[in-house]
Amino acid sequence: MLDKVRMVMVETTHPGNIGAAARAMKTMGLSDLRLVAPKIHPSAEATARASGAGDVLAAARVCETLDEALEGATLVIGTSARQRRIPWPCLTPRQLTAQLAREPEDTRIAVLFGREDRGLTNDELHRCNLHVSVPTNPDYGVLNVASAIQLMAYELRLALVGEDADLPEARSRREQMPLPEMFWDEPAASNQAVQQFLDHLQRVMEDSGFLDPEQPGQVMTRMRRLFLRARPDKMEISILRGTLVALEKRLRGPDSR
Amino acid sequence: MLDKVRMVMVETTHPGNIGAAARAMKTMGLSDLRLVAPKIHPSAEATARASGAGDVLAAARVCETLDEALEGATLVIGTSARQRRIPWPCLTPRQLTAQLAREPEDTRIAVLFGREDRGLTNDELHRCNLHVSVPTNPDYGVLNVASAIQLMAYELRLALVGEDADLPEARSRREQMPLPEMFWDEPAASNQAVQQFLDHLQRVMEDSGFLDPEQPGQVMTRMRRLFLRARPDKMEISILRGTLVALEKRLRGPDSR
Repeated sequence: MLDKVRMVMVETTHPGNIGAAARAMKTMGLSDLRLVAPKIHPSAEATARASGAGDVLAAARVCETLDEALEGATLVIGTSARQRRIPWPCLTPRQLTAQLAREPEDTRIAVLFGREDRGLTNDELHRCNLHVSVPTNPDYGVLNVASAIQLMAYELRLALVGEDADLPEARSRREQMPLPEMFWDEPAASNQAVQQFLDHLQRVMEDSGFLDPEQPGQVMTRMRRLFLRARPDKMEISILRGTLVALEKRLRGPDSR
Repeated sequence: MLDKVRMVMVETTHPGNIGAAARAMKTMGLSDLRLVAPKIHPSAEATARASGAGDVLAAARVCETLDEALEGATLVIGTSARQRRIPWPCLTPRQLTAQLAREPEDTRIAVLFGREDRGLTNDELHRCNLHVSVPTNPDYGVLNVASAIQLMAYELRLALVGEDADLPEARSRREQMPLPEMFWDEPAASNQAVQQFLDHLQRVMEDSGFLDPEQPGQVMTRMRRLFLRARPDKMEISILRGTLVALEKRLRGPDSR
């Protein structure tokens, strides 16, 4: 499905943003980038920012007009931070996700991204079937254009491929160890307090002779995983630390009492 | 809730990424940025990339150690693209969202982002309660660090503030005009075909005397909104175009027959 989506950047000024957009697209599995009258293209800066997505950048099609960039598209989505005088059907990316789930197979999607300084013109927005606006800080909603492409590409990937396409094997085992939702009586220990306990535990395990500092294996990793997953509360850490202190005294023998 | 979240960038190499991260955070309403041993900071490049988020960048706290950056945090989340030898509880950002919805009020969240070239070390990942991995293209999942911060900040905003905090007024009216889900018998018209029809419609409306080219008002905008929202099929566009052609002939008078 991702090959049915193209990203269209309109009159981009900074070539670095074109490269960053190519990279953002590739990380989400998109490859059809069209550039309407970019100010500078190609450029070394775009290539640098594209990093491992040089193939997407090299394949980007430069178009003279928006019409050329929209060739064959049946669902055109405009991205916009601003409210227009006449409201247009305007969705959040997640609402768009729900919409795309019921699109027919042959829908060809184009998502338009405007200029760095002033976005899409009204004429351009009036070519769109739907407008999408990313929820942002009302005091500063000025998304960088490559960031907007990253967010939209991410949402499109989730909508069209799903979350699970590339899950590492290990995740399939995740559901076997859920922690229940529950009320709790003590405040959570800070990460630092858990860290100090784990350091202490390691010393005691070494002193005990159980843990060989020369051949520690994955023992402490497994202990970390256990205690960090459990997210101990302050009282629990206090009890564990007290126990370790008592054990240390005994390990050092009667002299240390 | 957003003031309880801090973003921690560990040993960032490129100062531009620090500025881009500050901007990404501010667009989503986050402001607590901590930099563990950044290679270059402060810098003109970071300031330029921060754009209107200079305040977040200026307030970024430089820490010598990860421990200092994690001070007081009770839920530490590590971001990682790689699978480790021992699996750690690993969520997608959206699964994390569900988790955060049931966090107590006093949870202090820190999200760790690693180096550009090799992410977080195992030691750093082993300080985390949870690992988060953004679903990406299995063939190229190399998110730019500022892009990763943008995505996580976006998901955190949705989780902690919701989608609706800054919806423009117009959106509240959206639900009054839903289009039903339905099967359809004809393929959708392309955006270009709809555009050509709308141009044609405008000419006929002008020829008819209804639309004054000198004072067009919002008439065509409303027509565009109507037809783009409805997403006409090819047959419908064909009928509409045929009608316009017939009307034009009549408007030009009997000579043109």
